[in-house]
Amino acid sequence: MKAVIPYKKSSAKSRLSPVLTLEEREEFVELMLNQVIDTLKEAGVGTIEILSPSMYGLENMTKANVLLDKNDLNEALNGYLEQAEEPVIIVMADLPLLSPDHVKGITSTKEDVCIVPGKGGGTNALFIKNPSCYRVRYYGSSFLTHCSIAEKTGQSVEVYDSFFAGTDIDEPEDLVELLIHGSGAAKEYISKKFRLEMSRGRVRLVHI
Amino acid sequence: MKAVIPYKKSSAKSRLSPVLTLEEREEFVELMLNQVIDTLKEAGVGTIEILSPSMYGLENMTKANVLLDKNDLNEALNGYLEQAEEPVIIVMADLPLLSPDHVKGITSTKEDVCIVPGKGGGTNALFIKNPSCYRVRYYGSSFLTHCSIAEKTGQSVEVYDSFFAGTDIDEPEDLVELLIHGSGAAKEYISKKFRLEMSRGRVRLVHI
Repeated sequence: MKAVIPYKKSSAKSRLSPVLTLEEREEFVELMLNQVIDTLKEAGVGTIEILSPSMYGLENMTKANVLLDKNDLNEALNGYLEQAEEPVIIVMADLPLLSPDHVKGITSTKEDVCIVPGKGGGTNALFIKNPSCYRVRYYGSSFLTHCSIAEKTGQSVEVYDSFFAGTDIDEPEDLVELLIHGSGAAKEYISKKFRLEMSRGRVRLVHI
Repeated sequence: MKAVIPYKKSSAKSRLSPVLTLEEREEFVELMLNQVIDTLKEAGVGTIEILSPSMYGLENMTKANVLLDKNDLNEALNGYLEQAEEPVIIVMADLPLLSPDHVKGITSTKEDVCIVPGKGGGTNALFIKNPSCYRVRYYGSSFLTHCSIAEKTGQSVEVYDSFFAGTDIDEPEDLVELLIHGSGAAKEYISKKFRLEMSRGRVRLVHI
């Protein structure tokens, strides 16, 4: 079993631009990437690969293999899956609430494919036992797409139901979840810049 | 063990007002309430009580007991807990993705209290084995508050990690989750009014 993390540091997380500068966003995604790698390592995943269109920010990466692929995310991942000879877990780099227990739970599925839904129809992690028989299609409602790709190719699916693994950090409101439920360097980074404002509705983010 | 559902139909879900009229919101919360009651019944919960400041919309309720309490949500719930002589699960009425298995999982906790976090720091469900020793404080970051109330009173806590039970329907974007992951009358109601628009980011809601 191996893990692959799609990653791009350059101009990352544009939807966080209302609250973080370009430089801050690039620093922040690097912290989240490192946390995801550590989580995978702690879960006992032996091979961890970062799939990136650019070496930018990965020049000194020693904790994982870096694979350069300038193709679009889906093309790059599908090329990767095609050549994989063992089960693959695709993990997004923006999951600072993912824990080693989640990774163990996802990868010990009895089904052929295990999908971790993210907010707004996304796919936060995708474990594929027979990667050469599966193709991904991220963007849009990828959760439904990934379920239907499995169904069409006769592969059984488990939906892994987790609030924390389901929390991808894309928009300012997601930082609230990180501050409330998170730990580690990514949380520390954000907690130096923002505090939570309590109201009768959901908790909101306020610049310090 | 018994379940209590705080509920108010009148002018419900004001944060959905950008996409649903007052009348629609009131219809919609009633559908969600009924779904939550059915889920609790299916999970085998014998006594289900609705705690409401008004009989409005509950005149013909036969599936659950209706308790009228004009006090503020926290006061009403704390009064309820004080008098409870058996374990209580407090379930919000806006959880159409909650399943009987979730309810069974939450109520079979080994800890004194089991908390289901919702988006933005909320508490979607709260199971309390010794209700007369516990007080609630909803609004604001109630998840953190409820953890700390348990800690201060020497009660152990399980955090129940579920994307689906963690999805409370408060804001327009939450309806996306209902359309993607839901079933039943609440989903049908919303799917007659909205469709999903796919984009490169998260899926968005569009009026039909």
